[in-house]
Amino acid sequence: MTIQSEVRTAAEVLSELKQLVDPTLAAHVDGLHPPLRAIARYHFGWDDTAGSGKALRPALAVLGAKAAGAQGDEPEVVDAACAVELIHNFSLLHDDIMDGDRTRRHRPTAWTVYGTDQALLAGCALQTLAFEILARRGLSTALDTLGREVQALIAGQSDDLSLAARREATLEQCLAMEAGKTAALLSCAATLGAQAYGAPAETSTILAEYGHHLGMAFQLVDDMLGIWGESARTGKPVAADLRARKRSAPVVAALCSETEAGAQLAVLYDGAEELTDHQVTQAAELVEQAGGRSWTEQRAEFHTGEALARLDQLGAPTGTLVDLTIVTRFLLARTW
Amino acid sequence: MTIQSEVRTAAEVLSELKQLVDPTLAAHVDGLHPPLRAIARYHFGWDDTAGSGKALRPALAVLGAKAAGAQGDEPEVVDAACAVELIHNFSLLHDDIMDGDRTRRHRPTAWTVYGTDQALLAGCALQTLAFEILARRGLSTALDTLGREVQALIAGQSDDLSLAARREATLEQCLAMEAGKTAALLSCAATLGAQAYGAPAETSTILAEYGHHLGMAFQLVDDMLGIWGESARTGKPVAADLRARKRSAPVVAALCSETEAGAQLAVLYDGAEELTDHQVTQAAELVEQAGGRSWTEQRAEFHTGEALARLDQLGAPTGTLVDLTIVTRFLLARTW
Repeated sequence: MTIQSEVRTAAEVLSELKQLVDPTLAAHVDGLHPPLRAIARYHFGWDDTAGSGKALRPALAVLGAKAAGAQGDEPEVVDAACAVELIHNFSLLHDDIMDGDRTRRHRPTAWTVYGTDQALLAGCALQTLAFEILARRGLSTALDTLGREVQALIAGQSDDLSLAARREATLEQCLAMEAGKTAALLSCAATLGAQAYGAPAETSTILAEYGHHLGMAFQLVDDMLGIWGESARTGKPVAADLRARKRSAPVVAALCSETEAGAQLAVLYDGAEELTDHQVTQAAELVEQAGGRSWTEQRAEFHTGEALARLDQLGAPTGTLVDLTIVTRFLLARTW
Repeated sequence: MTIQSEVRTAAEVLSELKQLVDPTLAAHVDGLHPPLRAIARYHFGWDDTAGSGKALRPALAVLGAKAAGAQGDEPEVVDAACAVELIHNFSLLHDDIMDGDRTRRHRPTAWTVYGTDQALLAGCALQTLAFEILARRGLSTALDTLGREVQALIAGQSDDLSLAARREATLEQCLAMEAGKTAALLSCAATLGAQAYGAPAETSTILAEYGHHLGMAFQLVDDMLGIWGESARTGKPVAADLRARKRSAPVVAALCSETEAGAQLAVLYDGAEELTDHQVTQAAELVEQAGGRSWTEQRAEFHTGEALARLDQLGAPTGTLVDLTIVTRFLLARTW
């Protein structure tokens, strides 16, 4: 382990990888039909001083390829990273429409600016572009993985919407939904660059498992932030998920706990009227009393442990292993 | 030319090819996430006595492959036919939402039954499935074609929506939109089966051009049906396109004609109030007086001629050539 790797922060690692991938990503997007390209560029925040996102998924794709022995800047690796980022943004464009979300990264969402139909079409264009990019390079294995994980992502979003409308959701259903909605694409990201590079199946399987566990832990942390996260850090109202009566993992764990607190929470959740600030605070306490918080913490720790264990199995070059560990710890150490 | 081929009707040709493709198509769709599979099956009309559509596009894919020397029932050819039909139905599911259409083939559209979000997701699942199917077989050339034509399809739908909202549309813009919205997928259909079979580039190019011209002629005929079609045949209200102030090719040709009738039509189209039955009849007459009907007829005839000329260049087996000609004539001979 070199001294240089030790002192790098996650922000530095992610920023360096973003600089590697962004020019190619922009070149691909600029090949789209002009009106849809404009929407995509707006959504990515490329023409805006506010800047764009952290680009976590393409970073994982490049790091995964490096773990399998690539330099990381091979054109097929960078293209795999682009494909994953395009799919992520396809899902963001569509989810913002379905969820009626009007802001993202402190900017008006694309559909509020361009209308739902055109934003929807821009999302479909990004999805198609991801497949096009891999097809042009004849990357069959990566294409196969991308197709499967995109289906899982779509299934997860479908389940998320239908579980929200259902009173009886089991923890198993909730976790399966989160596996699709979040973990599938992180798993895809972690393995796709390596597959594009031609890594052996064993390596790409370990990377896919790493990405899955990272994704599950990430989502469970997100669920906790949605209840106990500081508003200033999350950029959302306090306990936004409870206010929206979302059936996230801590809530479902509490509702399924067969405790008095769980039963009281169910009464609050079954009501039709908007929850008062007092009721939101009360709901957060009930989730905690019913064991929903500790259950989720333990589950997040389990997946974090599994993710880190997969990194150990990789036999990756030290510098890459350090970078992967830094990024993993950063994602899972967001405080709540 | 055998006597048997001479007596087959287009309905018989299409029905035989539908029976070849449908079981594989259903098997692919049945692999989807169950809630989305249910929406897709409903949309296809498979569990309904009313029956499903003619499946024109997969028929073209199989006939194109046969023109290139295939038997037509090779698994990769049938899969290419499935991919095209999946993309077509992805676009129908989404277009019905965007256009607010409540019925299709005399049945309630999927979004009216399952909600817009789930119908949207089912559409995305079908789109992804099309790419998955080709990726699983490692059909790089076909994947490349599919990606490009799906982008053209999405671009065409985007232009259709934005042209509808714009007062000034040129004939060039209108035809470019129709090339994307309709001709791109017919071109893809005509060539994809042959590409999956491994046909030489020259053959697949002729087939793609055939499909493009067929698609253009098909759309122009559709535009005429939307104004002068008999309500009983089209299943739509009389002159539905004029009532909706659609800027279809005959209308744009009339508006751009610099005639007195064209100017009067512009006044009707620029109004904000719903058109009366009398005004709709008047608009149809004005389109005709301004030369919009004859322009569109001539343009449709041009593309029909080009499509049939491409069939002659194919050097296809006689039986296949007869079938392709029967289907082509059938599609373009719908009376108005």
